[in-house]
Amino acid sequence: MGRLLLRCVDRPGLVAAVSAFLAAAGANIVSLDQHATEQSGGTFMQRTIFHLPGLTAARDELEREFAAQVAVPFGMDFRLTEAAKPKRVAIMASKEDHCLLDLLWRNRRGELDMSVAMVISNHPDLADQVRPFSVPFIHVPASREVREDAERRQLELLRGNVDLVVLARYMQILTPAFITEVGCPLINIHHSFLPAFIGAAPYRRAKERGVKLVGATAHYVTEDLDEGPIIEQDVVRVDHRHGVEDLVRLGSDVERVVLSRAVLWHCEDRIIRFGNQTVVF
Amino acid sequence: MGRLLLRCVDRPGLVAAVSAFLAAAGANIVSLDQHATEQSGGTFMQRTIFHLPGLTAARDELEREFAAQVAVPFGMDFRLTEAAKPKRVAIMASKEDHCLLDLLWRNRRGELDMSVAMVISNHPDLADQVRPFSVPFIHVPASREVREDAERRQLELLRGNVDLVVLARYMQILTPAFITEVGCPLINIHHSFLPAFIGAAPYRRAKERGVKLVGATAHYVTEDLDEGPIIEQDVVRVDHRHGVEDLVRLGSDVERVVLSRAVLWHCEDRIIRFGNQTVVF
Amino acid sequence: MGRLLLRCVDRPGLVAAVSAFLAAAGANIVSLDQHATEQSGGTFMQRTIFHLPGLTAARDELEREFAAQVAVPFGMDFRLTEAAKPKRVAIMASKEDHCLLDLLWRNRRGELDMSVAMVISNHPDLADQVRPFSVPFIHVPASREVREDAERRQLELLRGNVDLVVLARYMQILTPAFITEVGCPLINIHHSFLPAFIGAAPYRRAKERGVKLVGATAHYVTEDLDEGPIIEQDVVRVDHRHGVEDLVRLGSDVERVVLSRAVLWHCEDRIIRFGNQTVVF
Amino acid sequence: MGRLLLRCVDRPGLVAAVSAFLAAAGANIVSLDQHATEQSGGTFMQRTIFHLPGLTAARDELEREFAAQVAVPFGMDFRLTEAAKPKRVAIMASKEDHCLLDLLWRNRRGELDMSVAMVISNHPDLADQVRPFSVPFIHVPASREVREDAERRQLELLRGNVDLVVLARYMQILTPAFITEVGCPLINIHHSFLPAFIGAAPYRRAKERGVKLVGATAHYVTEDLDEGPIIEQDVVRVDHRHGVEDLVRLGSDVERVVLSRAVLWHCEDRIIRFGNQTVVF
Repeated sequence: MGRLLLRCVDRPGLVAAVSAFLAAAGANIVSLDQHATEQSGGTFMQRTIFHLPGLTAARDELEREFAAQVAVPFGMDFRLTEAAKPKRVAIMASKEDHCLLDLLWRNRRGELDMSVAMVISNHPDLADQVRPFSVPFIHVPASREVREDAERRQLELLRGNVDLVVLARYMQILTPAFITEVGCPLINIHHSFLPAFIGAAPYRRAKERGVKLVGATAHYVTEDLDEGPIIEQDVVRVDHRHGVEDLVRLGSDVERVVLSRAVLWHCEDRIIRFGNQTVVF
Repeated sequence: MGRLLLRCVDRPGLVAAVSAFLAAAGANIVSLDQHATEQSGGTFMQRTIFHLPGLTAARDELEREFAAQVAVPFGMDFRLTEAAKPKRVAIMASKEDHCLLDLLWRNRRGELDMSVAMVISNHPDLADQVRPFSVPFIHVPASREVREDAERRQLELLRGNVDLVVLARYMQILTPAFITEVGCPLINIHHSFLPAFIGAAPYRRAKERGVKLVGATAHYVTEDLDEGPIIEQDVVRVDHRHGVEDLVRLGSDVERVVLSRAVLWHCEDRIIRFGNQTVVF
Repeated sequence: MGRLLLRCVDRPGLVAAVSAFLAAAGANIVSLDQHATEQSGGTFMQRTIFHLPGLTAARDELEREFAAQVAVPFGMDFRLTEAAKPKRVAIMASKEDHCLLDLLWRNRRGELDMSVAMVISNHPDLADQVRPFSVPFIHVPASREVREDAERRQLELLRGNVDLVVLARYMQILTPAFITEVGCPLINIHHSFLPAFIGAAPYRRAKERGVKLVGATAHYVTEDLDEGPIIEQDVVRVDHRHGVEDLVRLGSDVERVVLSRAVLWHCEDRIIRFGNQTVVF
Repeated sequence: MGRLLLRCVDRPGLVAAVSAFLAAAGANIVSLDQHATEQSGGTFMQRTIFHLPGLTAARDELEREFAAQVAVPFGMDFRLTEAAKPKRVAIMASKEDHCLLDLLWRNRRGELDMSVAMVISNHPDLADQVRPFSVPFIHVPASREVREDAERRQLELLRGNVDLVVLARYMQILTPAFITEVGCPLINIHHSFLPAFIGAAPYRRAKERGVKLVGATAHYVTEDLDEGPIIEQDVVRVDHRHGVEDLVRLGSDVERVVLSRAVLWHCEDRIIRFGNQTVVF
């Protein structure tokens, strides 16, 4: 099964061109989603799942042909992946266990289409809990003081080895240099319904503001903290009887569900970024 | 803007055939959704929105050509409609106003893509409330005793005049003969989360069972009462402080939202029925 | 049926003192909710619903006695109301009809415990839609230029005549002087999930930020725009296919539900304010 | 901190009697919730949380005094518990891990107010996953054929040793004799929104019916399978793209959240049963 994602300036004939190419290549389209940001002249995005016997062997040539016959003439950005090749993922965590364990547990159940290459944490606390999942746990101390060293060590571990980095309540700021050099997308979970409560201590501030719902937001990481393209959000109802620690507890349930959905969708190549937004097919 | 809905046995090349046909006809695909019930060999369904200048004049020929070149060779059921032609809709009601008024009000705001041809009610109570919407209100007394007469009169009003009948808490049973002879789809709103509480007095039974959520279900009407293909459902939380009349009140909000979504989706040609289920694109 | 709301510094014996007073007065407690912000020493709030035959005649004396025997000794703020006396409410609107009509319609159904004394609008557009509800519609032109005149006229209409003012998408800013002089609480509906998108054009900004949920917030009006105590919030899911106008449409459904809940709860004396927060019993 | 739950026929003076008793005993009421099923003459239920220094030592005498002075005169059923004494809980499971692990994980985080005495499973599969939680895992083979032996062995383990049995997707039917003899409440999680899809294979039947939401229900176990008092329910949205296995996956998230809420509320003594319903304070 192959997955073809593409993005270009909208114009007539795009769907026909892609589907004719795939039909000629002997592929059967299993699923096709597309979206145009405007009625005409906007950005066109499409995700196509197709079945093609012998895809793995033919992949490189298919990619070349598609580029030559379709992508270049139409000015498309595109990505061709194989469903059979799960994404290699690194998870970065600190002391909070809920997002990390939920991802590992879901992956063991076969719910997520990924292979976890490593867990990197700036604290050793969660090592025992990660071990039963047979995933390498690597302790890289990190703090404001040793950020440079920490990031150098992290980049040695990550660069070229993973297709995605998931920040599962990793409580350190990453530098723009790190985000560029790591060479793959990063997904973060923020413990508020962004753009409400950007920054630190969102649950405490939610309690002080007296909101009636708290939420969580999974987004791609960009240089602007808490400002990257939003992938998924959800909320849970709270009331006056809930203290800050209840908000933390109830919010944790939302965080782990929201993050796992974002990771699943990314690993299934369902997400196309454009500008500071996402399309999730 | 044209809308092309189709359903057939799945096989390779369907998307390519349709999109090539449309491209050759000078149409630009604005939106395309498709779904196959199985990886291969199942039922294939597709909804395509396309832009074609001069569609109204060219429509009949386009339909013939599509049938000859694509639909017949591939064994497709298909439907070609124009977005510019809103569905003609009749609403049937009894004494409850919330679903009826909500549909009329949304339509006045331009939220629903329909033209309301008439309101038929077996009680005169709501006439004054319908009048400001400039929609004919027709009182056709109906009850178990006069069902035959009532349905004959209703069929005279409806047959050939409407594309859709909406039962907005119409509290009379319709005979299978009526459902066949009316010649267009009927959408009903049931005041429970089907298949829970099929039949009468669902809120009372929900209270007796002590459920923590009550809901509503919009479905196409078939000969089997409350068993037709489900279009949309939703629920609202209740607790021990709510009596039956509170469930009725809270449920009414769900009913009107669920029914209006179902009507909107139908009028936008988003729904394809297959077996006893629906696909909502 | 009487309703007793109170708020004071927490200390032992409060519930006993109140319930003993009511028992001695011959009242039967039908419902009692209380909340303390801390385990001890915080703010204590309580809502008690009681049945007392002849309450209307005995009300003033009961109030005096309660003040003397309980409220003063314990340093309580309290409010004693009769369920049989619905709140007198003014609704202020501009051109948007959904919140206004929903309140009028719910009230006609008997869902809200209020009597609508008047609708004040700075535009004449909605007069025809309000008329069938037999509620006075008063057009008071208002804009930045004539704010002073408008507020003077509005105060003449409102002061002493209503117990609550509901801003049902009233699109003018009210001055702090007006808020003070009107002499009763004001409830506003903001068309975002506060504190996200404080200020103007929240749906457009929500679309630009690419959020996956949009919401609405009902709150008491204070001098700080969009910063008053939150009464209720809710959200609805959106995705990339929704343009700004879809967000407006979907958000409207949330706005009217959220506002009607807030108004209902206020009219049932369920809300106690403390600091910039609310307790909703 | 003490918790006093009571249920009796409603009559005037109940709240006053209880709160006066507690005040006289030197207790401070921290939280009080009550509910009456009718305006008058129905069932009255109340949950009171109070602070009383030296409660553990004074508990037995307090209980005797309350019985003599209040409960007997008013004909109350009551239960007096100490918040400091967590419930002793046994979890019964089969092969599905999600509900079991979620309960163990939440308890390790301190979210649930319980002490897990043992896990009993009719399959050995989950032993390795339970071990890291330092909870005894006991494999008691059970099936239709050996039900009698299995239940005898289970009763030996449970009787007198636990305050609550949680069926965390335990896939065997328990006999009425077992339910009686185990001597404590049992909570079960059913993988549908009851009363929809009572019985086996609810997700498959949900898919066949084409529902748009799937849910889960936590309830007390009674002799009537899937008919016991409902404690909590929730749902999640599904669509045509989801196969049965997706419904299982999405439903699992609802199951574990719903079950954990029910267990938390039971352990916090928030639930009062009456008839076949529950009040959750």
